Amino acid sequence: MRNLAGRLDLCSINTATLGHREPIEAIVERVARHGYGGIAPWRREVEGHDVAAIAKRIRDAGLSVTGYCRSTYFPAADAAGAAAAVEDNRRALRDAANLGASCYVLVVGGLPAGSRDLPAARRQVEEGIAALLDAARTLGVTLAVEPLHPVYAAERSCVTTLAEALDICDRLDPDGAGGIGVAADVYHVWWDPALAAGIARAGAGGRIAAFHVCDWLSPTAEVLLDRGMMGDGVIDIPAIRGMVETAGYSGRTEVEIFSAANWWKRDPEEVLAVCGERLQGMC
Amino acid sequence: MRNLAGRLDLCSINTATLGHREPIEAIVERVARHGYGGIAPWRREVEGHDVAAIAKRIRDAGLSVTGYCRSTYFPAADAAGAAAAVEDNRRALRDAANLGASCYVLVVGGLPAGSRDLPAARRQVEEGIAALLDAARTLGVTLAVEPLHPVYAAERSCVTTLAEALDICDRLDPDGAGGIGVAADVYHVWWDPALAAGIARAGAGGRIAAFHVCDWLSPTAEVLLDRGMMGDGVIDIPAIRGMVETAGYSGRTEVEIFSAANWWKRDPEEVLAVCGERLQGMC
Repeated sequence: MRNLAGRLDLCSINTATLGHREPIEAIVERVARHGYGGIAPWRREVEGHDVAAIAKRIRDAGLSVTGYCRSTYFPAADAAGAAAAVEDNRRALRDAANLGASCYVLVVGGLPAGSRDLPAARRQVEEGIAALLDAARTLGVTLAVEPLHPVYAAERSCVTTLAEALDICDRLDPDGAGGIGVAADVYHVWWDPALAAGIARAGAGGRIAAFHVCDWLSPTAEVLLDRGMMGDGVIDIPAIRGMVETAGYSGRTEVEIFSAANWWKRDPEEVLAVCGERLQGMC
Repeated sequence: MRNLAGRLDLCSINTATLGHREPIEAIVERVARHGYGGIAPWRREVEGHDVAAIAKRIRDAGLSVTGYCRSTYFPAADAAGAAAAVEDNRRALRDAANLGASCYVLVVGGLPAGSRDLPAARRQVEEGIAALLDAARTLGVTLAVEPLHPVYAAERSCVTTLAEALDICDRLDPDGAGGIGVAADVYHVWWDPALAAGIARAGAGGRIAAFHVCDWLSPTAEVLLDRGMMGDGVIDIPAIRGMVETAGYSGRTEVEIFSAANWWKRDPEEVLAVCGERLQGMC
C-alpha cells in the first residue's frame, strides 16, 4: 500500500467536503494550494457556468479531476421520465469529458415515488446505464457505478453492494472493453461481509474507477449529512485502502464528507488541513 | 402463499410493537383476544418475574411463542466480557425454553467500544453462538441469527445479510442437525439484491426460524425507532412472504414495529386492530 505521508498529490478533494459554499474557482485554488493532486466537482458548481473556463482553471492549477458528481437518478415513474434522465445524464457526461474527469459518478436512484418494486427500479437503472455506455466510451469518461449504503435504498440508490454494481458492469461490458466500473466509498461498503471479495473482483476486472474516504460516526446523528472525518469513526480505512490498492487501484484517494452540522460549518482552510493530516495518518 | 384473511392465528405479535408499556400478562390477554396465534416476548418483560407463571399464562391463552427477544451482544472488549455474554445468553435460553419459545432471537452485537475490527467482532459472534448450540439443542430452542440492516453494523449487529447468517449456520451445523437458523425480518433484508437467493437457501436448509414484518418508511425520520406499519412504507411484503413460504416456511408471520413517535403512543387496542387489518390486506 502506498504511503500517503507527504503525498497529498495522491489524494483528491470532493468539493462536497467543503459544503458547496464557494464558487468552484475559489475551491480549485484552495485545493491546489494545499497540495492535493485532484478534485471532484459537482454539477451544481459547473452547470450554467463556462465549463471550458472551469476546466482550464483546474488544469492550470495542476489538478486532476477524479470524478464528476453525480448522475440524475435513473428510475422514473414512466418511460418518458426514464428517457429524460438518460438525456440529462448524457449532457452531464459531456461536461465530465470537457472537465477532463476520469469518471462520471453514478448514484443511480432508488424507488420512484409510490413504487415498491425494487427489481423494476434495478432494471431501469441497468437500462439507463446501458444507454450511456457508448457515449462514455467515445468521450473517454468511465461510468462509475457507486453502490450506496443500503440505508439509502428507498430514496437514493437501489444498487447497494459492490457485487451488485459489478454484476451490472459485467452484464453491460462482458468482454471487459471498459467504459464502466465502480466507485468504492468506504462509507457505503465498510459493513459488507463480502467486501474483500468484492474489491478483489473489482480490481481483477479493472473496474475500480474511484476510491472515496470519510468515516462512519458511532453514533450517527442522521444518515445523510453526518459523515465523519477520517479517524473519527469506526471504519478501518487503512484495511480497505490496502485491499483496494492490492487489487490494483493506482488512482487517487478522494475525500468526500457530507457533514452539515460540523465540517460544513468550519473554515474551508481548516477542513482541508485536517483532511490532509488524516489522509497522511489515519488512511 | 397462505391467505392471511381471517387467519390471524397464523400471525404473531412481537411485544415491542406495543412499546413495552404494560406487564406481559396484560399484553398476552390483548393479543389472544384479537385472535393472534402467537406472541414474542422480550426479556425485559420476563426476567425478574415468575417465568413459569408467564409461560402458563401464555399457554392458557392459547398462544404459541414465536420467539424470545433477544440475545446479549456477543462482541466484547476482552475474553471475560465475551464469556459473560455467553453465560447471560445461556440463562436467557433457559427462560426461552421454559416459555416454550420456538427460537431465541440472536441480535448479535456490533463493534465493541473503541474497536474498528469488524472481522474480529464477527469471529467473537460466531464463537459465542457456537458456545450456545449444544444447550439450544438440548433445550429444544432454535438459535435464530437475525441479520440486521447494515445501518446497525457499528452498534447492534455485525451480521448484516442473510448470506452471512446462513454461512454461520452452515459452519456451526454442517450436517444440518438443527438447533440454529435465521430470523428473517423484512425491515432488515428488503434492500438486499441477494434476497431471493438467501431466502431460497435458508428454506432449503430448513433454516428459517422466524419471519418478521413491519415496513420501511420513506423518508425514515431515524433508523432505530421509526419503523412503519405494514403498508405504510416501501417494502413489498407480499413478495417477500411469498419467497419465504415458497422456501418452505410454515411458521407464523410476526409483527415487530419499533415506532416511538407513532404506534407506541397509540392505544394498544388500536395498534393490534391495525396490525390485524394490514396483515390480512397488505402482507
